[in-house]
Amino acid sequence: MARVGIYGATGYTGIELLKLLSRHPEVEIAFATARSAAGQRLSDVFPIVSDLRLTAVEEVDPAGVDLVFTCLPHNTPDLIPIVQRALDAGAKVVDFSDTFRIADPAVYAARRGKPHPAPELLALAVYGLPELHRERIRQSRLVANTGCYPLTAILPLAPLVRAGLLADSTVIVDSKSGVSGAGRSLSLKTHFGETHETFSAYNVGRIHRHLVEMEQETGLHIIFAPHLLPVFRGILSTIYVNLKPEVDDATLAAVYADAYTAEPFIHVLPAGKLPELRHVQHTNHLLIGHQMVEPGRAIVVAVVDNLVKGASGQAVQNMNLMLGFAETTGLL
Amino acid sequence: MARVGIYGATGYTGIELLKLLSRHPEVEIAFATARSAAGQRLSDVFPIVSDLRLTAVEEVDPAGVDLVFTCLPHNTPDLIPIVQRALDAGAKVVDFSDTFRIADPAVYAARRGKPHPAPELLALAVYGLPELHRERIRQSRLVANTGCYPLTAILPLAPLVRAGLLADSTVIVDSKSGVSGAGRSLSLKTHFGETHETFSAYNVGRIHRHLVEMEQETGLHIIFAPHLLPVFRGILSTIYVNLKPEVDDATLAAVYADAYTAEPFIHVLPAGKLPELRHVQHTNHLLIGHQMVEPGRAIVVAVVDNLVKGASGQAVQNMNLMLGFAETTGLL
Amino acid sequence: MARVGIYGATGYTGIELLKLLSRHPEVEIAFATARSAAGQRLSDVFPIVSDLRLTAVEEVDPAGVDLVFTCLPHNTPDLIPIVQRALDAGAKVVDFSDTFRIADPAVYAARRGKPHPAPELLALAVYGLPELHRERIRQSRLVANTGCYPLTAILPLAPLVRAGLLADSTVIVDSKSGVSGAGRSLSLKTHFGETHETFSAYNVGRIHRHLVEMEQETGLHIIFAPHLLPVFRGILSTIYVNLKPEVDDATLAAVYADAYTAEPFIHVLPAGKLPELRHVQHTNHLLIGHQMVEPGRAIVVAVVDNLVKGASGQAVQNMNLMLGFAETTGLL
Amino acid sequence: MARVGIYGATGYTGIELLKLLSRHPEVEIAFATARSAAGQRLSDVFPIVSDLRLTAVEEVDPAGVDLVFTCLPHNTPDLIPIVQRALDAGAKVVDFSDTFRIADPAVYAARRGKPHPAPELLALAVYGLPELHRERIRQSRLVANTGCYPLTAILPLAPLVRAGLLADSTVIVDSKSGVSGAGRSLSLKTHFGETHETFSAYNVGRIHRHLVEMEQETGLHIIFAPHLLPVFRGILSTIYVNLKPEVDDATLAAVYADAYTAEPFIHVLPAGKLPELRHVQHTNHLLIGHQMVEPGRAIVVAVVDNLVKGASGQAVQNMNLMLGFAETTGLL
Repeated sequence: MARVGIYGATGYTGIELLKLLSRHPEVEIAFATARSAAGQRLSDVFPIVSDLRLTAVEEVDPAGVDLVFTCLPHNTPDLIPIVQRALDAGAKVVDFSDTFRIADPAVYAARRGKPHPAPELLALAVYGLPELHRERIRQSRLVANTGCYPLTAILPLAPLVRAGLLADSTVIVDSKSGVSGAGRSLSLKTHFGETHETFSAYNVGRIHRHLVEMEQETGLHIIFAPHLLPVFRGILSTIYVNLKPEVDDATLAAVYADAYTAEPFIHVLPAGKLPELRHVQHTNHLLIGHQMVEPGRAIVVAVVDNLVKGASGQAVQNMNLMLGFAETTGLL
Repeated sequence: MARVGIYGATGYTGIELLKLLSRHPEVEIAFATARSAAGQRLSDVFPIVSDLRLTAVEEVDPAGVDLVFTCLPHNTPDLIPIVQRALDAGAKVVDFSDTFRIADPAVYAARRGKPHPAPELLALAVYGLPELHRERIRQSRLVANTGCYPLTAILPLAPLVRAGLLADSTVIVDSKSGVSGAGRSLSLKTHFGETHETFSAYNVGRIHRHLVEMEQETGLHIIFAPHLLPVFRGILSTIYVNLKPEVDDATLAAVYADAYTAEPFIHVLPAGKLPELRHVQHTNHLLIGHQMVEPGRAIVVAVVDNLVKGASGQAVQNMNLMLGFAETTGLL
Repeated sequence: MARVGIYGATGYTGIELLKLLSRHPEVEIAFATARSAAGQRLSDVFPIVSDLRLTAVEEVDPAGVDLVFTCLPHNTPDLIPIVQRALDAGAKVVDFSDTFRIADPAVYAARRGKPHPAPELLALAVYGLPELHRERIRQSRLVANTGCYPLTAILPLAPLVRAGLLADSTVIVDSKSGVSGAGRSLSLKTHFGETHETFSAYNVGRIHRHLVEMEQETGLHIIFAPHLLPVFRGILSTIYVNLKPEVDDATLAAVYADAYTAEPFIHVLPAGKLPELRHVQHTNHLLIGHQMVEPGRAIVVAVVDNLVKGASGQAVQNMNLMLGFAETTGLL
Repeated sequence: MARVGIYGATGYTGIELLKLLSRHPEVEIAFATARSAAGQRLSDVFPIVSDLRLTAVEEVDPAGVDLVFTCLPHNTPDLIPIVQRALDAGAKVVDFSDTFRIADPAVYAARRGKPHPAPELLALAVYGLPELHRERIRQSRLVANTGCYPLTAILPLAPLVRAGLLADSTVIVDSKSGVSGAGRSLSLKTHFGETHETFSAYNVGRIHRHLVEMEQETGLHIIFAPHLLPVFRGILSTIYVNLKPEVDDATLAAVYADAYTAEPFIHVLPAGKLPELRHVQHTNHLLIGHQMVEPGRAIVVAVVDNLVKGASGQAVQNMNLMLGFAETTGLL
């Protein structure tokens, strides 16, 4: 029985992670931290899930723990010390932030407008997408869990890139996300009255911070328009690609049919059949649909649950690889 | 053309009031205040409604204004001075808070646990429910706009009280409200992820601050359970009453059929037909349905749009009375 | 490994049951029927869950199957022959309809207005509420899975009845249900435009067919008002009880604290803390909150997921008892 | 006072039209038909709106009526005779179907796969988009009210086409619509459980029947991907355009700033500010936002209420033009 710790247990990804781990037969939870709820029991915040006592970050000791999950808000100042301390104590780390996702520190500096805060840790990190980096994740002590949006672009585009079907390295990704992606911190943007029974685009074009990940993993130039859906969980991305003139329906279908046959969590629908959010909500699966539009153009649609395969389920999948368990343990 | 001012224009009731006034043929807006958005145009906060410039409270002068609406959060410390200043300047006032709704200062002190902050203003105030106090509102300089929940209890219960049908002065009111009732201020309770696709009861029993109004206007003892619906606007209240043994279906139906025939905004459905939220959303109407359950018991259901008849529409209706316009102007 | 069959696999309870069984380590699915989708694969209707082939009722043979679930719409004419054939073939049956829930054929005839269609089968049936009838369920060959609403009245009221705290045998149950309770058959009532962003009461008083179950299991006289919530899954019931004058907060709290300590799926919150739908959605748990209102009166709130503990999870729990598995297998 | 008739009053567009007309000072309703509800009062179907008696199509006589609205489902077989009879009786017609929107019968035949059913009526018809065809609508006896999706493509694209800014005649339109666009007829696709808390794409590419209108009015080649939002009303379209290399932010902003200054219902936001559904719901306004992405590429976002400006409000605007009223009467 492995022992794991969780930093940031009361956010939406933290709660989802606790639910998944409570069903996992190979791990027990050594500690769970929460800033404002420290000292309470998890059941005070969310009944049933578990009766775990929440502790302050300062109270916990990662020594003797096999792996820690850091589910902290972006730009938490104490992330680097927490990761460092865990690694020093011999614990592996799955980090939920986007601190360790951009492999090249120069790209990081260029896109974020400041140098990387811990380049020596960055050098250790592996981008936590098992379908592309399974073996490296197995060997890694520090895994950067992927962003939620990038999954829905990288996995549908990778087969097209690999097979050389694209006529154009610029691709349009129109994504629609449930509100849980914005987390549990208060903001007018996620206030019920501003989000419910409405719909909006935000940070469109070349602005969103997830863009770098998508481009790093696909090698493409991406025009990205995220939107906020009035649902709690799930992302659907509609992708517009230009194909080489010789690519016909059969070629496209064949490339997708073969792409993920060995993957337990990635599924491709028959040509012309498109996936819906509800097909994957509360699961660790990602579904891909594709349709030829006319010669030279196709539309690809991907759906994922941003809190599971897009965050906490992905994290458990990475943990399974890092700790030597069967990859699907606790996730089917 | 009358001139009106609005204190607190960017909350949900403020925006709704501006929309209603923009259609009202007899008024023009003299000023609109907003705390954090002072200096901006309303169209910066909410496109289309109006291009009005938002000002700070300190900047505005109620002199020369016929009436002001005070749509400020409960317990705003500067409410009393604002109301006083407006009255001194000769402007009438429709106040949205619950400061002036309890007529008796002793009851106020007992239920709120502190003396009334301005008993001399309270002495001027009339409870702003036109269907019960029309003539007094016409004469009043200070009207306390009703709470949203109370409407859905007072108006359905008043005919039963008046006709002497009740066997028991204790009545159960189970209410369900859209989230806009909680306002535009940020709180975890109104965060999308805590409110959407869920449902909850809160402040049940004898706790909610609207209880006093309901009891003042009906003379009954009320057990009140409010709930939070995952919709933006609307309140539906299900009311359980014990009737005298001799009351039969026909008596009940007759009392309700006659109760509101002269009222333009209150409608009673035929016995056994129950109203739904969508019937009244975005209108100033209140709908009542009633059903005998068994001898001695009936269930009454009332629906209203909390932002219109439950707040800003009611306020315009009160203004129409206070300024001598036809009562339905701008509201049909 | 036990073999189970499912009649009616493509309704909302059927799909939920398939999801639960796919995680259950002790069973395999022998067959799944669907009327209109016979011949298709389940993945054509709902990707991912399973690739099971759907068959017509006429094609399947319950011989060699340990247990069948009948998840058919109310009043399906072939329910009785299906149940009879399964029992004759040696398979146990968990039935989702309300055909076998009323133990006394005379009560059935009186409340349904017609004689029971199969009194000899009714005589075999046990009401499938493990928390009240665990031992009888273990011995039974035919279990009538409970209705979804009744759970939220019976389980909160049972401790009060047992402890003799009620002053009055009449109890008011105001219930609010997600739309999935109305099933997957088309009707204007469950059309998106008539259900979304609205709220309504229906069949209030003494009309709803679930009333008989509630009264049979509690011995009380119940005034029942169901409402339709604009959410997919979950029921919250607000219950108004009159207590004997000597019952104080401590007594009430003590009765509830002891009521369900041994039950894995029933949880009581501390006095004054009320459960919300989201606490139980997608789980087999039922949560109870309680609050004294004034001497002689209390409000009790219960929440459950109507598709899990209110239907398919309950069915698996019953199956676990009937086939001798640990009761919580596949449900935590 | 003009007299108008409505064919198909109980669908979502019919109800919306009745609400709008009830506020319109220049018209009275001569008749309203409904197939299944003929003989009932409108208040039986939807309380409050009006107490109008609903009649069967066969009962009504368009003689003496100034204008009729035909709000009938697509492919209603009796549409052509109804329109013909109204015109013969001297009534003008605003038709909500897509029967008369494609001006060229050869295009109609090619895209619909069958000849136009009434080419002599088609020759009379004008495409009912006042912002492009105001004068022709004023003179017309038969106006084809626009589709809801096309509005959100045509109006944002027209200024770019007119100013010659586009580098490429192919444009991608990714649209998201509320469910009311699919009407009030029952289908699994609009069943609450299949539409709520989910999201999906459908008919993507070159399939949707609204595509022809968009292309007719813009002269462009459009890749169109409609999606179904879990909201009741509103459409947001995200449009991806390739601009000539010399077009910079200032040029784009200037073209949009000038495009609709004289239009009462079309509004352009400042560069970089994007509109949201809630800004236009329940109004006859259409809002446009635009953002340069990088040299040669921009994203344009448009929002509209599909039931108002996208259907019944547009119809009233067309009626105002056809009957010689001020264009905004009853719509602000």
